Amino acid sequence: MTQSNSNPRLFVEAGLAQGMELNLAPSQAHYLSHVMRLAMGDGVCLFNGRDGEWSGVIETPGKKKCSVTVEDQVRAQVDEPGPWLAFAPLKKACTDFIVEKATELGASRLSPVFTRNTNSARVNIERMRANAIEASEQCRRLTIPEITGRVTLEELTNGWPKDRRLFVLDESGAGQPIAGALGALRSGSNGLSQDCGFLTGPEGGFGADELDALGKLDFVIGLDLGPRILRAETAALTAMACWQAVIGSDRRP
Amino acid sequence: MTQSNSNPRLFVEAGLAQGMELNLAPSQAHYLSHVMRLAMGDGVCLFNGRDGEWSGVIETPGKKKCSVTVEDQVRAQVDEPGPWLAFAPLKKACTDFIVEKATELGASRLSPVFTRNTNSARVNIERMRANAIEASEQCRRLTIPEITGRVTLEELTNGWPKDRRLFVLDESGAGQPIAGALGALRSGSNGLSQDCGFLTGPEGGFGADELDALGKLDFVIGLDLGPRILRAETAALTAMACWQAVIGSDRRP
Repeated sequence: MTQSNSNPRLFVEAGLAQGMELNLAPSQAHYLSHVMRLAMGDGVCLFNGRDGEWSGVIETPGKKKCSVTVEDQVRAQVDEPGPWLAFAPLKKACTDFIVEKATELGASRLSPVFTRNTNSARVNIERMRANAIEASEQCRRLTIPEITGRVTLEELTNGWPKDRRLFVLDESGAGQPIAGALGALRSGSNGLSQDCGFLTGPEGGFGADELDALGKLDFVIGLDLGPRILRAETAALTAMACWQAVIGSDRRP
Repeated sequence: MTQSNSNPRLFVEAGLAQGMELNLAPSQAHYLSHVMRLAMGDGVCLFNGRDGEWSGVIETPGKKKCSVTVEDQVRAQVDEPGPWLAFAPLKKACTDFIVEKATELGASRLSPVFTRNTNSARVNIERMRANAIEASEQCRRLTIPEITGRVTLEELTNGWPKDRRLFVLDESGAGQPIAGALGALRSGSNGLSQDCGFLTGPEGGFGADELDALGKLDFVIGLDLGPRILRAETAALTAMACWQAVIGSDRRP
């Protein structure tokens, strides 16, 4: 472990290059000064999703304004081609949970999808993005998952790339066991890339006609998650955890 | 789906047999009368972890007292031999989360384990048990996971059955990939039974000497959960989700 692993990690929008000076956002200044109680000369880590990870040193700590000098690149940028996760928004704590855990487990895109039985009429995209950034900072990702705007189920499938498998978590029990389906995707035996996505429904499940329509799409495979009835957020995270174990475990930053 | 699948499911302590009349606990009476607004003649499902699942009919609904007549057995009792999960308690919401999700994903025993870096000095065993019961009711389990008292790491390993694999979630990256390790357990190639358990550490991780001591035990295998740093509760859920997918997915009640 290098020293930088224990320093606070911050996502920034700006480009990163040796010697440049950055003014952090007020919320980051507050976090470093008041929560972490860092002082001039203390180290931080910086990443922006494009230029890898850099060490930095605090120049002027302050409550509202904090500047950092960028020092050395400590990790080169790599692609993080994780799965896409489309999910029917749940109540706030459960949506927060899905965003945080899916980010930790490697999702590269998160899309709130409105299905017939979706209870939440609204979803806070800015809150989703803030939670994804915080989780990315903590879990040492080099990218932030893309948060798309809200879509309907039809918009999601109409816009879905035909060469990307879409695994639908089907609580009816009619789907394939997840371990086998992901193993086949990994081995490439079906001629597809390993790119994939997952779709999880609302508390009330998908409508029968929604499942019928999904089942007619060539890129859709229904997945079965086992003998018990899982809560919607548990199902989403189970899919992500299995993806991480079967396909995503090869890459260590 | 039989009609009983949409009726409220309740865990009871009493034995269950056709024609008997049961007085429910006050909290259950409140739930049926005030939350679910059920009336005389409405149906419920009952299970006790020993006698399978039974349909029942409400005889006298009431705020504090509610009696039910047991009608027919709708599912026979089966063993639910899921893994044991031993985890360092986290702050309350995260411990609640682990208990709920591990129950949904099939854990048969939950043990709060105190390691050197465990922050929580206390753990509420009764709260853990209540959360495990509620999750069991919702996910259609026929058993409630056993909640053991708190143990130290040494007590846990001293009392661990030598023929039960203990997978330690090792954030150092030195462990085996989880998919392969669980696949080997499933195939029985190592001569062990499929019985296993998982151990997850606190936010600060295991101490180096704790990992050393664990590594000397024949029944311990360290597991690696992938390239990102997972929160402690995410690691616990990931292990349970992978167990469910690789070993536990064969059985459907």
